Amino acid sequence: MTQSGYRAAGVDIAAATRAKEMMATAVRATHSSAVLAGMGSFGGCFDASLSLAGLEAPVLVASTDGVGTKTMVASAMGRYDTVGQDLVNHCINDILVQGAHPLFFLDYIAAARLDPEMVATLVAGIANACQAVDCALLGGETAEMPGVYAPGAFDLAGTIVGAVARAEMLPRGDIVPGDAILALPSSGLHTNGYSLARRLVEPIGYHAQPPELGGVSIGEALLAVHRCYLREVGVLRRAILIKALAHITGGGVFDNLPRVWPSDGDRSYTLGATIERGTWVIPPIFTFLQHLGDLSDQEAYHVFNMGMGMLVIVTPDAVDTALAAVPEARRVGTIIEGEGVRLV
Amino acid sequence: MTQSGYRAAGVDIAAATRAKEMMATAVRATHSSAVLAGMGSFGGCFDASLSLAGLEAPVLVASTDGVGTKTMVASAMGRYDTVGQDLVNHCINDILVQGAHPLFFLDYIAAARLDPEMVATLVAGIANACQAVDCALLGGETAEMPGVYAPGAFDLAGTIVGAVARAEMLPRGDIVPGDAILALPSSGLHTNGYSLARRLVEPIGYHAQPPELGGVSIGEALLAVHRCYLREVGVLRRAILIKALAHITGGGVFDNLPRVWPSDGDRSYTLGATIERGTWVIPPIFTFLQHLGDLSDQEAYHVFNMGMGMLVIVTPDAVDTALAAVPEARRVGTIIEGEGVRLV
Repeated sequence: MTQSGYRAAGVDIAAATRAKEMMATAVRATHSSAVLAGMGSFGGCFDASLSLAGLEAPVLVASTDGVGTKTMVASAMGRYDTVGQDLVNHCINDILVQGAHPLFFLDYIAAARLDPEMVATLVAGIANACQAVDCALLGGETAEMPGVYAPGAFDLAGTIVGAVARAEMLPRGDIVPGDAILALPSSGLHTNGYSLARRLVEPIGYHAQPPELGGVSIGEALLAVHRCYLREVGVLRRAILIKALAHITGGGVFDNLPRVWPSDGDRSYTLGATIERGTWVIPPIFTFLQHLGDLSDQEAYHVFNMGMGMLVIVTPDAVDTALAAVPEARRVGTIIEGEGVRLV
Repeated sequence: MTQSGYRAAGVDIAAATRAKEMMATAVRATHSSAVLAGMGSFGGCFDASLSLAGLEAPVLVASTDGVGTKTMVASAMGRYDTVGQDLVNHCINDILVQGAHPLFFLDYIAAARLDPEMVATLVAGIANACQAVDCALLGGETAEMPGVYAPGAFDLAGTIVGAVARAEMLPRGDIVPGDAILALPSSGLHTNGYSLARRLVEPIGYHAQPPELGGVSIGEALLAVHRCYLREVGVLRRAILIKALAHITGGGVFDNLPRVWPSDGDRSYTLGATIERGTWVIPPIFTFLQHLGDLSDQEAYHVFNMGMGMLVIVTPDAVDTALAAVPEARRVGTIIEGEGVRLV
């Protein structure tokens, strides 16, 4: 986080000093020797010679994303320490599906008025998620824009940059009917489906504790942190050959799984998939929301990840080794000839 | 711009098709062979082997920024084609001051409701500014967040990633009293000071054409595109040795020039600067705003760039060659022993 960025937010007031120091400490903890400090503060500087030297034909993979209206749940619950983690983990997963390892991250926080303590808490969350995967929090920007943002609301977006050797990029183009689909479990909604979820929950309120949720409030269940799959995917890659990864975000399994189909047009068939109900655990928040809104499966699986945070496509003979390497994983389906993703 | 990003915005409706095609064409025009298409769409992929191969000890320089409430002037004027250029040019200048050349850019556009045509126009502006400097528009995200954004308002932020050989990084640590300060002219407010400017202008309205502005409306003058100094700085670097560059953004010349002072503590003196009035041209919008708000020079030079978009620090004997290479440049001041930046 550059000082300049936070200065621009008008958070340079005396009362904010302690918050800023907390934040600076959290940010510095993400800085390896690759981050060149004191080289001027207009942009963050990352020495790429070490991280890219080991890669043949290095490809930089970048993604910008936000956490959507999960920020509104955070505001309503007065909890600002987790959405920063959601943001970073979402972005890590997005470049992970192309085979890339994170190098650095930059954040953007905007609101009508920024409370220094809230900003510091958000940034600490971002920094913690970065530190957990040795990703440098290289910069950031805050913006106070009364008139643009609704009072009390804020937006949180970020950009990740990672790297992968060109030959290691995913998805591989060799997915064929018969390949197996594994799922890594999600912690909850991650960062998608909050507009619908908020609408459904509105009459009850976030503090209600329906028995289905086993003791946590709706707000707590909705704020469950977006899981980062870097570690699990690393374990899998060392154990077996991964053909493709699909991060299940907006559009659910129906829209996200087909994004990994090879784009070459010289196949004589189209690819599809079957997902077999009952093969994985659906966290209670999903069944709760589905019942609450009387949503069809078609609707629910289009908006929510329904417990499958990341799908992994492997050859059938790799399934046993994969499941032994990552016991949390489940075999949830199969690649077929045909079109679309079907629940069976 | 990944398809996924725009799909997430709910702009996938039939009426939006033409706008999306326009946008896709503009984005594709920024893609050199370094952009790996069709490799999956969760993150943008940039082949770094070519662009970094020529650099000894390559350093990646990244910056995230927004255009602040200049978006509100754009909304009020119904002009969405220029703020994208503002955003990109601002970011290019921010990494330019560290010596870096842009590689790729990612954008973030958010509003309560996104109009597909507005998004397409914004993105086309971003793409045009990228194309002008051979920077790839590698990805982006749009977000519709009713409740977070005020109706009709939007936010626009972006992240640039560039590269520089470690030995070529700026600022150099050898700035000394007596060094000359050159200024490259700004086109207007660039992207800073809009909260104050909007407040001052409110009673008159953006469509007024005060005679001081010589025929353009206040709104037009305020929307003048943030200049990109990549070309001019390139010309200067080939002609002379640049010691440092300061992009004059929020905080004006007073706050931004000192950001390039060497941070090592073993000098026996502190650095300061004098800026000599009358040595450069102040665009009429600044004098107009200063009179309108009865702002002291101290205030005006703290909020606005006052016509100096980029400062260049060189040795005194390089001044003539520099001014011959970039005739628009002016010598505006001198580095001195002392503290702070003073107008004289």
